[in-house]
Amino acid sequence: MAVCVVGTGAIGQTVIDALRDSVVPHVSLTAVLDSRSSPEESAAAFDAADIVVEAATVDAARTVLPDVVKRGKDIVVCSCGVFADRGFDMESFGSGPSRVLLPTGAIGGFDVLAAATRAGSRDARLTHTTIKRPSALGIEERLDAERTVFRGSAREAALAFPRTSNSSVALALATLGLDRVEVVVVADPDATSTRHVVEWESPLGRYELTFENAIDPASSGRTSSITAWSVIEVLAALPLGIGPGAVVLGPPYRS
Amino acid sequence: MAVCVVGTGAIGQTVIDALRDSVVPHVSLTAVLDSRSSPEESAAAFDAADIVVEAATVDAARTVLPDVVKRGKDIVVCSCGVFADRGFDMESFGSGPSRVLLPTGAIGGFDVLAAATRAGSRDARLTHTTIKRPSALGIEERLDAERTVFRGSAREAALAFPRTSNSSVALALATLGLDRVEVVVVADPDATSTRHVVEWESPLGRYELTFENAIDPASSGRTSSITAWSVIEVLAALPLGIGPGAVVLGPPYRS
Repeated sequence: MAVCVVGTGAIGQTVIDALRDSVVPHVSLTAVLDSRSSPEESAAAFDAADIVVEAATVDAARTVLPDVVKRGKDIVVCSCGVFADRGFDMESFGSGPSRVLLPTGAIGGFDVLAAATRAGSRDARLTHTTIKRPSALGIEERLDAERTVFRGSAREAALAFPRTSNSSVALALATLGLDRVEVVVVADPDATSTRHVVEWESPLGRYELTFENAIDPASSGRTSSITAWSVIEVLAALPLGIGPGAVVLGPPYRS
Repeated sequence: MAVCVVGTGAIGQTVIDALRDSVVPHVSLTAVLDSRSSPEESAAAFDAADIVVEAATVDAARTVLPDVVKRGKDIVVCSCGVFADRGFDMESFGSGPSRVLLPTGAIGGFDVLAAATRAGSRDARLTHTTIKRPSALGIEERLDAERTVFRGSAREAALAFPRTSNSSVALALATLGLDRVEVVVVADPDATSTRHVVEWESPLGRYELTFENAIDPASSGRTSSITAWSVIEVLAALPLGIGPGAVVLGPPYRS
């Protein structure tokens, strides 16, 4: 499986390094694009790839996503904020043949939460709370104590905090949708890591999932190291035809 | 995709009902087997299926699993305790063409935990604590307070508590393996639901995942309702060629 990576920031670089180190069987890196790549370079790289990893920005994703999809190639989108834009025609991706894949990013548990959603979502509630240090949220002001700086839907969160809301958007699209998942963003001047708390409640059960993530030193305090590995996990799952939220004992998918 | 379900207990029946209600696109129920089915019936049902769901017992899984695999069909195994038996030749499943699939069962977060494992497992620790009422653990004695009744590896847990350890085994096989995941089983006379706490620690982060599950009334207090839905989620993921721990916007896998 030939992979083209778009973006050489913290996430993109970790994915690139892992693929160069052959961390994932049956998956190889064939091209790396960044903001200086020409349209001709991008076109050639997309044509040669089986799957494109967008690990750049929401703005870049707006261009890359349709460009890859019109070629019928699969794409992993890290800048999920692009899906929160009401002008963005998400329905159009259902018709294929491309698959648009959203990794779990800085959080997880999409396996159990998707299952619980399928069991019954009418009486379900889901909240995603992110606690970061103020500078990682673009807050210059000096805070003496933690402060809730946002509370709203996943869609609203993506428009207010596009860099911080990628996993909220992916979580929402895996479960109750962009308008029914509540997002809370807290600035904590004492935070040394980024914390996420995902709380689900429905007749099936109550789940409280806490993720305290080490920060990728290449990301100016913004990106959790696990995020790139969630992308790598999706790439590893594709040749198996299942996962990452299922264990596969067995050979690669015979396609 | 044609599905044969083996087992008509709480899990099997929920899967059967969901498939009859067409809850999952592109997936249909073609046969149901139970302990009274003849070898001829089983053989015909396996031959006609694309995938078999084992939702019976560890003993049944010992027979069904090789029988399905020798036909080259995929199988979802709920009685994961079968993999803890040292006499069981797990390596033999890697050669295919069958895929042996383990659902997340009563817990979840295999997506993020598998990603964290791939990032680096040397300094990782993972503990799975299950808190159930004594009767659900086969304890007849009257307890006045909660009591830790088991502490050991996932492999040892599966041998000591085969009915309770399926998700410990699946979790272990998704991450650090059967001998490196610690399992704790607590009997709590005041428990009204079953609680699972999964704790991960590695240089990448610290995750604490708490699952408090409603009990399937058809299971004599033993089985969480979410378990059957984790199987259904795997069946739903197969035609997409990815997931359940990833969001897919796009059409079914073109196989």
